[in-house]
Amino acid sequence: MDEFARIRHWTDGRQSPSLLASQGVVLGIGDDAAVVGAPPSARGELEWLLAVDTMVETVHFNDATMAEEDVGWKALAANVSDIAAMGGTPRHALVSISVPQAWGPERVRRLYDGLYACAAHYGVAVIGGDTTSSPLHVVVAVTVTGTVAAGAAIRRAGARPGDAVFVTGAAGMAAAGLHYLLAAAAAGGTAPGAQVRPVPLAAAEAAGTAALVQAHRRPAPSVRAAALLAARGTVTSLNDVSDGLASEAWEIAEASGIVLALRESRLPRSGSLTAYAHRCGEDPLSWILYGGEDYVLLGTIAAEDADAAKAELEAAGLPMYIIGAAEEGAAAVELIRDRGADRGTDNGRGSASSHRREPLAKRGYNHFGG
Amino acid sequence: MDEFARIRHWTDGRQSPSLLASQGVVLGIGDDAAVVGAPPSARGELEWLLAVDTMVETVHFNDATMAEEDVGWKALAANVSDIAAMGGTPRHALVSISVPQAWGPERVRRLYDGLYACAAHYGVAVIGGDTTSSPLHVVVAVTVTGTVAAGAAIRRAGARPGDAVFVTGAAGMAAAGLHYLLAAAAAGGTAPGAQVRPVPLAAAEAAGTAALVQAHRRPAPSVRAAALLAARGTVTSLNDVSDGLASEAWEIAEASGIVLALRESRLPRSGSLTAYAHRCGEDPLSWILYGGEDYVLLGTIAAEDADAAKAELEAAGLPMYIIGAAEEGAAAVELIRDRGADRGTDNGRGSASSHRREPLAKRGYNHFGG
Repeated sequence: MDEFARIRHWTDGRQSPSLLASQGVVLGIGDDAAVVGAPPSARGELEWLLAVDTMVETVHFNDATMAEEDVGWKALAANVSDIAAMGGTPRHALVSISVPQAWGPERVRRLYDGLYACAAHYGVAVIGGDTTSSPLHVVVAVTVTGTVAAGAAIRRAGARPGDAVFVTGAAGMAAAGLHYLLAAAAAGGTAPGAQVRPVPLAAAEAAGTAALVQAHRRPAPSVRAAALLAARGTVTSLNDVSDGLASEAWEIAEASGIVLALRESRLPRSGSLTAYAHRCGEDPLSWILYGGEDYVLLGTIAAEDADAAKAELEAAGLPMYIIGAAEEGAAAVELIRDRGADRGTDNGRGSASSHRREPLAKRGYNHFGG
Repeated sequence: MDEFARIRHWTDGRQSPSLLASQGVVLGIGDDAAVVGAPPSARGELEWLLAVDTMVETVHFNDATMAEEDVGWKALAANVSDIAAMGGTPRHALVSISVPQAWGPERVRRLYDGLYACAAHYGVAVIGGDTTSSPLHVVVAVTVTGTVAAGAAIRRAGARPGDAVFVTGAAGMAAAGLHYLLAAAAAGGTAPGAQVRPVPLAAAEAAGTAALVQAHRRPAPSVRAAALLAARGTVTSLNDVSDGLASEAWEIAEASGIVLALRESRLPRSGSLTAYAHRCGEDPLSWILYGGEDYVLLGTIAAEDADAAKAELEAAGLPMYIIGAAEEGAAAVELIRDRGADRGTDNGRGSASSHRREPLAKRGYNHFGG
């Protein structure tokens, strides 16, 4: 197969004309550029959202942690999440993929299988791309478009003192899943020269870590939750948790010039994460606060609408957790710990109050409270 | 510098608020996604053009062939050219860059210097990006947007028998420039362990290859020519020469279901290319037909408008060459060679006519007539 035949093998006939038309696609893959108009279902004046996100072999995935299909799914899902984090509807994707000779067309085909599965799930039209060779490692850069009503994009900068802080799912699961995958791959070993294969999901099921592994491999961005929340008009800031809950909270705090005070007892905890952390002697809170790639939404909402928003999402089968409040003050993120959660990190100075506030580190994955 | 400080170092304050506003940018770099509306200067109903193009270290450039600034310029220019090739106006760019530790922030800064210089030249607003680490090689994927009046995008598929075939500049120069750069780098040698530096332009000037080297390093897409041509409404197909003149002609021929007959004597030839080819014993026609990355436009135009279009472009200081005609027949590209150009490849069978038609290979860089 030459390059053009390969691209057809990977992309031809993957999406129906009706899906493409519903996203306003005038001309898809195959010319110098794709052509799109306003999607027919969009009403009123639109603005366009654009974002790009990249996955690099050895940095974001390797043969043991993810199958090709997972890489394709996640490369698109991470971008879809960025559109959700602006309160928008994802529309189109363009895929740049650089592959080494050793991968061969069938591995690339499987990567596209996962990418198109994600596109089908979120109704995204894949309208263009570029395929190049790469000396050694796979690099996938996906660009997405989305739309919002003009002026309705939800930024990081709008949080006000008094707003409630929410998340749309449990954080830390993807980081815990990655921890398990790396440990399982190291323990499993591979015969020299043999092709490393992804740690099987069956092994993760036996180990009680399947939900964590799937959180790492197949993130499910909160697109429906974003649409419902954006329509309420009371969400004042919004981020997706790609770099960790603390890091994303800091971005909102700094952009909005407020303090975000998070209650430890309100942070949603996955049972698998708690059990797995206990088994490895890790602090689950470290993953929850500093683990990345969860792609749940973190935001602030007018306090008086928080309960109604939560009720609406839950009626639609979507979780929403109120985890704290925005407060006046110089930009900061603080964790309100319950006395029961005190793990002796205050070096015996004691704590008279029933709660203790601790500043959270600005960013980066590291162990909490250390 | 942490990652966020680096991104600010590379991108902060690079473009004026007025440039961003003129391209409809509501929100640029710094949130989950960029937000854009219709550019204020655009009139009537718009369609959006989207394209992505990738440059990979060792595949598209290396330390000897291009400086960091050249890589940045070319990564954006290749994309701007795709928008021109649809008859559109380039608007926005998003930059995905994966860099190995060894590059360091200053080399990346220089890459951005070149990219922003290209953006300034073409009025493109850089609105987003993603920076990741890379194990060994630099990969730059740039996505661009552009606009056209609704329905006005010029595809590959519209050429009709009788149309004139044109190009907006000489092809083959970038391939000849790369040939010189690789030869000069091989001849120059580098002390073991020393940093390889780009072959200096001064050396190319001395060798009479500066124009070829600049064609490879700093391609200048035909954006103004595209705008003037598109406005005439008589251009029936359009491609940019990224993969070689013959390859691009084949794309038009196949998409339109016609024969493109190109006259050898009409193909524009750069004097530097002819002289350099002569010096190395290479066939200049091979570079002209099969060399890539020239980013001139190749298209077809209603025959009756060809002279007027050429006159309009030339009055604006832009070259346009009528190099052949579209003919009825099964998709093919043929070169009409003049008897004088016969290099004896007919194995002594002779040629009674004053012209001879030869089919051109469908794609790929290889030696012509061999």
